[in-house]
Amino acid sequence: MAANTFGEIFRVTTFGESHGKGVGLIIDGCPAGIQIDELFIQSELNRRKPGQSSIVTQRKEQDTFVIQSGIFNNLTTGTPISIFIPNTDQKPGDYLHIKNVFRPSHADFTYQEKYGVRDYEGGGRSSARETASRVAAGAIAKLVLRHAGIKINAYVSQVGDIKLDDALTLDLNITETNAVRCPDEETANKMMDLIQTIKKQGDTIGGQITCIIEGCPVGLGAPVFDKLHADLGKAMLSINAVKGFEYGSGFRSVTMKGSEHNDEFQLQNNKVTTKTNFSGGIQGGITNGMPIYFNVAFKPVATIMKAQDTIDADGNEVVTAGKGRHDPCVVPRAVPIVEAMAALVIADHLLRNKTVKF
Amino acid sequence: MAANTFGEIFRVTTFGESHGKGVGLIIDGCPAGIQIDELFIQSELNRRKPGQSSIVTQRKEQDTFVIQSGIFNNLTTGTPISIFIPNTDQKPGDYLHIKNVFRPSHADFTYQEKYGVRDYEGGGRSSARETASRVAAGAIAKLVLRHAGIKINAYVSQVGDIKLDDALTLDLNITETNAVRCPDEETANKMMDLIQTIKKQGDTIGGQITCIIEGCPVGLGAPVFDKLHADLGKAMLSINAVKGFEYGSGFRSVTMKGSEHNDEFQLQNNKVTTKTNFSGGIQGGITNGMPIYFNVAFKPVATIMKAQDTIDADGNEVVTAGKGRHDPCVVPRAVPIVEAMAALVIADHLLRNKTVKF
Amino acid sequence: MAANTFGEIFRVTTFGESHGKGVGLIIDGCPAGIQIDELFIQSELNRRKPGQSSIVTQRKEQDTFVIQSGIFNNLTTGTPISIFIPNTDQKPGDYLHIKNVFRPSHADFTYQEKYGVRDYEGGGRSSARETASRVAAGAIAKLVLRHAGIKINAYVSQVGDIKLDDALTLDLNITETNAVRCPDEETANKMMDLIQTIKKQGDTIGGQITCIIEGCPVGLGAPVFDKLHADLGKAMLSINAVKGFEYGSGFRSVTMKGSEHNDEFQLQNNKVTTKTNFSGGIQGGITNGMPIYFNVAFKPVATIMKAQDTIDADGNEVVTAGKGRHDPCVVPRAVPIVEAMAALVIADHLLRNKTVKF
Amino acid sequence: MAANTFGEIFRVTTFGESHGKGVGLIIDGCPAGIQIDELFIQSELNRRKPGQSSIVTQRKEQDTFVIQSGIFNNLTTGTPISIFIPNTDQKPGDYLHIKNVFRPSHADFTYQEKYGVRDYEGGGRSSARETASRVAAGAIAKLVLRHAGIKINAYVSQVGDIKLDDALTLDLNITETNAVRCPDEETANKMMDLIQTIKKQGDTIGGQITCIIEGCPVGLGAPVFDKLHADLGKAMLSINAVKGFEYGSGFRSVTMKGSEHNDEFQLQNNKVTTKTNFSGGIQGGITNGMPIYFNVAFKPVATIMKAQDTIDADGNEVVTAGKGRHDPCVVPRAVPIVEAMAALVIADHLLRNKTVKF
Repeated sequence: MAANTFGEIFRVTTFGESHGKGVGLIIDGCPAGIQIDELFIQSELNRRKPGQSSIVTQRKEQDTFVIQSGIFNNLTTGTPISIFIPNTDQKPGDYLHIKNVFRPSHADFTYQEKYGVRDYEGGGRSSARETASRVAAGAIAKLVLRHAGIKINAYVSQVGDIKLDDALTLDLNITETNAVRCPDEETANKMMDLIQTIKKQGDTIGGQITCIIEGCPVGLGAPVFDKLHADLGKAMLSINAVKGFEYGSGFRSVTMKGSEHNDEFQLQNNKVTTKTNFSGGIQGGITNGMPIYFNVAFKPVATIMKAQDTIDADGNEVVTAGKGRHDPCVVPRAVPIVEAMAALVIADHLLRNKTVKF
Repeated sequence: MAANTFGEIFRVTTFGESHGKGVGLIIDGCPAGIQIDELFIQSELNRRKPGQSSIVTQRKEQDTFVIQSGIFNNLTTGTPISIFIPNTDQKPGDYLHIKNVFRPSHADFTYQEKYGVRDYEGGGRSSARETASRVAAGAIAKLVLRHAGIKINAYVSQVGDIKLDDALTLDLNITETNAVRCPDEETANKMMDLIQTIKKQGDTIGGQITCIIEGCPVGLGAPVFDKLHADLGKAMLSINAVKGFEYGSGFRSVTMKGSEHNDEFQLQNNKVTTKTNFSGGIQGGITNGMPIYFNVAFKPVATIMKAQDTIDADGNEVVTAGKGRHDPCVVPRAVPIVEAMAALVIADHLLRNKTVKF
Repeated sequence: MAANTFGEIFRVTTFGESHGKGVGLIIDGCPAGIQIDELFIQSELNRRKPGQSSIVTQRKEQDTFVIQSGIFNNLTTGTPISIFIPNTDQKPGDYLHIKNVFRPSHADFTYQEKYGVRDYEGGGRSSARETASRVAAGAIAKLVLRHAGIKINAYVSQVGDIKLDDALTLDLNITETNAVRCPDEETANKMMDLIQTIKKQGDTIGGQITCIIEGCPVGLGAPVFDKLHADLGKAMLSINAVKGFEYGSGFRSVTMKGSEHNDEFQLQNNKVTTKTNFSGGIQGGITNGMPIYFNVAFKPVATIMKAQDTIDADGNEVVTAGKGRHDPCVVPRAVPIVEAMAALVIADHLLRNKTVKF
Repeated sequence: MAANTFGEIFRVTTFGESHGKGVGLIIDGCPAGIQIDELFIQSELNRRKPGQSSIVTQRKEQDTFVIQSGIFNNLTTGTPISIFIPNTDQKPGDYLHIKNVFRPSHADFTYQEKYGVRDYEGGGRSSARETASRVAAGAIAKLVLRHAGIKINAYVSQVGDIKLDDALTLDLNITETNAVRCPDEETANKMMDLIQTIKKQGDTIGGQITCIIEGCPVGLGAPVFDKLHADLGKAMLSINAVKGFEYGSGFRSVTMKGSEHNDEFQLQNNKVTTKTNFSGGIQGGITNGMPIYFNVAFKPVATIMKAQDTIDADGNEVVTAGKGRHDPCVVPRAVPIVEAMAALVIADHLLRNKTVKF
């Protein structure tokens, strides 16, 4: 029962609250001999950090990190890698007004009831800051995946009603060139305009992220409970604000016939491929070598600047409104988080797959 | 690394193939003192078994079960409960023609590559028969949930383009009165007509199941990786043919604003409730006492009677077509499977929650 | 929390009571492609089964087994292997007299208090019969170890005061030629005489088993909590009646100096070995390629034919005495159990070790 | 596969090397609402820390700690508790001479072979410093046990040939009044003399620790693999330098008869007790309410100041001798480590036991 641990062999355990000393993690089970690239880890953290553009929260965390163990002469030693990310821009005062309030669609009420005690400053473990640990761990996982030639790219495919046209051929190199992380400039601009409008209204808006994983060997995943897409689904659904996950044909498959949906096999350059890829690169829970792709739905951020009715811990009716610095739309900063969680799943299954045959 | 085990405290491990001696499971961690109702377990298995109506496969398994351990004087003893479900209607001849073929959108290719050896009869572990173990385990979990007054009801909400109208007030008692398991008679009839048409075409069709969980106490689930909906999502995505999972507002939340989406708290009869329930009964990964609801997307069954191009294990181009007895649409029989997996998740978290406070 | 599961990658889950339908197990994580030798599995079960000689219990279980899944064309498929061992010689009447009695040094009292319900027939899970599952699982593990050239040999090194002389050079091929499983004929005869004498007294006697593991590659085990000897120790201490475990120099090391105890390294035929082996083949928790050896202490069996004072569940003072068929000394039949548990540990760590480097 | 994690519900994951930034740990699964006593945690660390007396290593680590998460207003919140213990007295120069040497009975050779890369400074994870994390975690576990009225007391019962007389009635309050931690002054003095003599010889000596756990409720532990003593055994054997574990009658039971060894039940003041306690407080793997007691054998420390023959990584014969600051006998500082590991096991099983009944 490891509520704060993710993975079976490549295992990440995270800790920390947004208004304590910091957040961090331990990776246990990272193979020995992996070259550590600290600049890369920092660049991943920078993609998630607050304050990076005008459409995200203006909180000022630098998200610098310290590796405390597990590395010797820049190589992993096979022992636990501990990473600490200190908190630097705490404003506890921002939360005093909600100390006793159950904010709508926040975890205040459920935490209070479950534990009988609650760290109300910054939301405790429910804070978005917890995801910095995921991104740092994911960066290490990505370094592992480099060895196997596996690449993971996520991007924003929808914000509110602004949706990336399926027909477009995407150049994923564009993703990081705009603040919203959408790989089509025109759509990106529309999304950013929408987010700015929503922000001015003191409101928030939902969005969707699409992720593509290329270069996976055939054979990752397990037949029954640990199907690769089931583990990817759990990984994504464990990210704050996620309400849905679909892979391959996803919810569209509901209206499809088998004769349309089946992916016929063919031999291409001595490699087995499929003519279509409604399977999303996974068949029977196991990778077939085709690209994996999936969508993740994010609800609008719960903290809005508008007044809302609710109750406090004593049952009194109160009016609450957000203060401080919050994201009007979560998806731009969630792109590296989606990639990080995907990297954790793939790295874990890559190692698991080493044990199925002699 | 327990690929065939599900759960942390209430743990189910399954085994078996559709063309071996049988399928079965061990439940470890079931509390002691639970009254076992064998008729109920059989009735759950009957809801899943083949041959129950004209719109499902005509395979003739009776799915009778034997409890081999863990029960004394009709009470659970706290020791492992082992259940065995013998196979009785095997027709190995049905599979000889595909011994060497990689059927489109089946697990033949991925299993072969992963393990280097493959049980081609009936698909081995990828067979739908594996789900009988899940239903039997889920029936025990449901007996545990009865103690806590928790009820789980799933139903078919969509088949192809035939969709249950959201505006309808549903009477979930109707669900089991029709073969497709849709709680609206008119829609059910349309769905059954569609399935019959598809069946005559030798084709298959996708569908969607909705599940509602009522009576959960506040506090089930964990803040970070083991959010209740993340575990529900993994449970559902681990079912054969599932392509997507969404809970509460789901993918619809992508287009919503925070001011629309937030669920304001209120006090009703001294109980904290929310005015709306876009959260789907879960906030910050933890139940808030409101009904949990979620949708599960199923793709069309891969085995169709139409000819399809593919290759065999030697890379030769071949034509394949299904033989034998298969489901034209998986959702009618998947309703008890969805309920079973939901019951496993809730029973597990119910027990986990007993350890968070003294 | 998997109280009835052992292992991390090569995972065994057992079930069953001595007076129900049978006992059995699932192995999850056995590599694919391992040749299954059913005669070997049966021969291992025969070494454990009751009634094999005059110095063990005369219960008549044949311990025949059925493999229910996971094997195809005599090869493991990488899916769960389920084995069932039916009970055939149950005499429930033998236990009615103790239905309500807390037998001295048995688990009656502790089970009753822990679970509130208790299967009093044959001791439920505390029955020695549970170890048949361990031996069957261990036989599969031994088949895995054959691939790696690893051999495990246990033998009885002490019964009561009759102790195998340390100075003897042992021929482990003798072990199975006598009923007590001691690899020195003269000592074996003394041990058997002692057991016969004790048996006539209606009493029981303790004993010790020594186990030697040869052919382990360097590198099995983990540095901190999962030291190989810690996992071996847990495995042995989990066997009924075991009171102590020591490896290498063991308790003798308490009185030794570092200068005596340290094992100096040398190069022999291009292989690193140690001149002495007080380390018992394990250094820093990890195998160094030298033979592993350890001792396991077994207490005298609790069921004796003599009258003993005790109380019943209502707190009344009662007199109890064993009836039926019991072992006067547990070690002769425990030899294959010790080997089986050792095989489970080594097979698991062999697979674990495949994930530490690319 | 969690090589650096211990426990199932109360889970501790440790990290860190003796010559990196520090050591530390995360506790996941600690119940909410436990009062944290930082002075107590520090006092536990002080019992383990180097330099506390003339018979232990003179390394100067202060072992001050920082709690980084999981505590709010001095109460545990149910979220992960992270503790960091910075390294302050590193002398990397002390290890340059052994960079390439395989020291006798150290983990140099096995680490190098297992991982292909090795942190030679201070022994990496095999350093005694790793145990500071265990003591800090154990201190939190002890705070949990206080709630349940459970007390754990360990002491040194043997150093070399100097053994505490079994016949003595011990006053465990004396344990901490002498540097060797033996609860009999006269024996303690003899032990300290012996250690001083050994130290002057540049040699080291083995020892034994005995631990007593009082106040455990009936019912802790599980029937098969997770017997309480099996988990205690694994916990103890995972401590550096431990070669053996026995509980209750231990290895003595080998020569005992059932009629001598059985513990008869009686009713005392309406409480079920046993007249003798050879069972060591555990029957069938489950606590019976009587005191638990066990012995742990420690080998002599491998680092000695005398010259020893060995080889280096290139296979050259070399002579090595310890430099720097090391313990002549490990047991005085190991007393709090034994207690800490025992506390982790008991706290974990205390929580596990909350899930077996409704």
